[in-house]
Amino acid sequence: MASIGEFSTKGAYVHTGEEFTRDTNYIEDRITRDGTFPPGTPAPEGAKAWPVEAGRYRLVAARACPWANRTIIVRRLLGLEDAISLGLPGPTHDARSWTFDLDPDGRDPVLGIERLQEAYFRRFPDYPRGITVPAIVDVPSGAVVTNNYPQITLDFELEWTAFHRDGAPDLYPERLRDEIDEVNARVFKDVNNGVYRCGFAGSQESYDRAYARLWDAMDWLEERLTRQRYLVGDTITEADVRLFTTLARFDPVYHGHFKCNRNKLTEMPALWGYARDLFQTPGFGDTIDFVQIKRHYYIVHEDINPTQIVPAGPDLSGWLTPHRREELGGRPFGDGTPPSLVRPNERVAAGHNPLYA
Amino acid sequence: MASIGEFSTKGAYVHTGEEFTRDTNYIEDRITRDGTFPPGTPAPEGAKAWPVEAGRYRLVAARACPWANRTIIVRRLLGLEDAISLGLPGPTHDARSWTFDLDPDGRDPVLGIERLQEAYFRRFPDYPRGITVPAIVDVPSGAVVTNNYPQITLDFELEWTAFHRDGAPDLYPERLRDEIDEVNARVFKDVNNGVYRCGFAGSQESYDRAYARLWDAMDWLEERLTRQRYLVGDTITEADVRLFTTLARFDPVYHGHFKCNRNKLTEMPALWGYARDLFQTPGFGDTIDFVQIKRHYYIVHEDINPTQIVPAGPDLSGWLTPHRREELGGRPFGDGTPPSLVRPNERVAAGHNPLYA
Repeated sequence: MASIGEFSTKGAYVHTGEEFTRDTNYIEDRITRDGTFPPGTPAPEGAKAWPVEAGRYRLVAARACPWANRTIIVRRLLGLEDAISLGLPGPTHDARSWTFDLDPDGRDPVLGIERLQEAYFRRFPDYPRGITVPAIVDVPSGAVVTNNYPQITLDFELEWTAFHRDGAPDLYPERLRDEIDEVNARVFKDVNNGVYRCGFAGSQESYDRAYARLWDAMDWLEERLTRQRYLVGDTITEADVRLFTTLARFDPVYHGHFKCNRNKLTEMPALWGYARDLFQTPGFGDTIDFVQIKRHYYIVHEDINPTQIVPAGPDLSGWLTPHRREELGGRPFGDGTPPSLVRPNERVAAGHNPLYA
Repeated sequence: MASIGEFSTKGAYVHTGEEFTRDTNYIEDRITRDGTFPPGTPAPEGAKAWPVEAGRYRLVAARACPWANRTIIVRRLLGLEDAISLGLPGPTHDARSWTFDLDPDGRDPVLGIERLQEAYFRRFPDYPRGITVPAIVDVPSGAVVTNNYPQITLDFELEWTAFHRDGAPDLYPERLRDEIDEVNARVFKDVNNGVYRCGFAGSQESYDRAYARLWDAMDWLEERLTRQRYLVGDTITEADVRLFTTLARFDPVYHGHFKCNRNKLTEMPALWGYARDLFQTPGFGDTIDFVQIKRHYYIVHEDINPTQIVPAGPDLSGWLTPHRREELGGRPFGDGTPPSLVRPNERVAAGHNPLYA
């Protein structure tokens, strides 16, 4: 879930005197194995279920956005590239919409649209909330099916199993779900969204509160990851995906732009080792575009960076250094295998990531 | 020389499309041992010389300002506290003037004024340029004598010798002056002022140029200080004073607020060891008020930090860690001695500096 909604109604990210409050109302449709809501998960009011079907849906996910980045990682870890195509809006956007400005003629080659807004309007002609990524679009109708990002990756994991690659890892193992959910809840509140609460605080007091909560949570994570290689269990799970996309943006953006500056990520030994371990694991680092990430935040958030100048730092070469996290044990993919190479047409641009120098 | 002048005419620090250009026109009067310009240093047009005299002048120097900080350090290293009193404006100011808002009733207790501007106007009723610190004020007339900061510390060193304490170091030794001047010239251009050129750049291009020059200079300093304990010679000199006040502000302010973020100072081993060595030397660290420093930059520069929220970071406890720079040899004060304890009424507030926790 990216940033448009945050300022669509007031034209700014920061509201003086107020805490930052994320609009967490999404289009809660789901795509499920048989096109019905699974037993025990009732449909939210007004929501409907769509059937899993290879080639029918397009995932629209800007590389810049941490919430969208999760879906790119999970799609790749599970090998869903052939089943679900990927549309990539550019890193910047205006107050109305993310745009397909990186594509030839500025149009998504499958959906044929210039602005993601068009797909939202095809679903709801007067859609009132933010135009966010990730969004899954039904290609035949051109309408958004869902932008409910926490559910999208879970459904990739649990509902799209017929299309998983051989050796796809189990990112949401049944026996660990309660623990994963619990970790995710705190990571969302204090870290994933916590950095935004620091950066978009409308008062010194709300900033100070958000900063204290962020660093309490960072210290908790540091301690937890000193003892274990991954957040939950001894393999990569959904919990790692969700933390990773925030950590990848920490030093390039959140440290300075959002004033999350007690320490750099590189100063937190376990967290930094953990982040590098994941970065160097196929499916994680190869989805990261540091240039787009920096451009997005520093150019779009004009109310906290009016000059829109994008910092040249930090030095990112450290992401490829040895982390020695193997010594903690664990098997990244459990009984599965790493994903194969990134599709050439989905490769991050040269110079945008130390993996592609 | 602090920041007022930079926006007194246009109301902003950043001028879109332009490079940041520091107004380097100052009141070039000097205070000399016999009240005349020394042989070989002709008077600048319109400038006059004043005689050294204990108790006659007041140094007005905000702790927040790196240019003023130099004068506080040199005054203390040389033991000029009894000869030259110290007035301390608060860290923030408005578009017109630094103010004595930390003093009882908001007035400097010796000069009796609320705004430093009053002392400038007593000198020149229509003073057109920035109201800057440091400024030396003639107490009897209440008028500014000079705000020409590069000359002020040199004159403390060369003209006020009759009032130096026993054991005062020679901060500008004759045989090293050419080398000190040369180092100072590059440090001023690319580092002391270079960080401002990054932070107040009016275009991505001028930022990128300033950033490249800053880090070229930082790499040059890192290499130089890997081999030697101090910048010039094997004792503390004027060159170290000038670099130190920028380094003390690097991670708290310049790294994030001015986007000087290739690395933190703490990531540059020699520079960080050097900065800690000086910080732990009497006369340096005991002049630093990190709270005032952060409040100054983040609150005053509204055009690059419109929320005026002051970051809670970084963690500053590292300033007191061992640096092992003694292993490089050198004697901080040469044949002299360290200054005695800070006068109680000039002590940095508790909690504003890890020395005073």
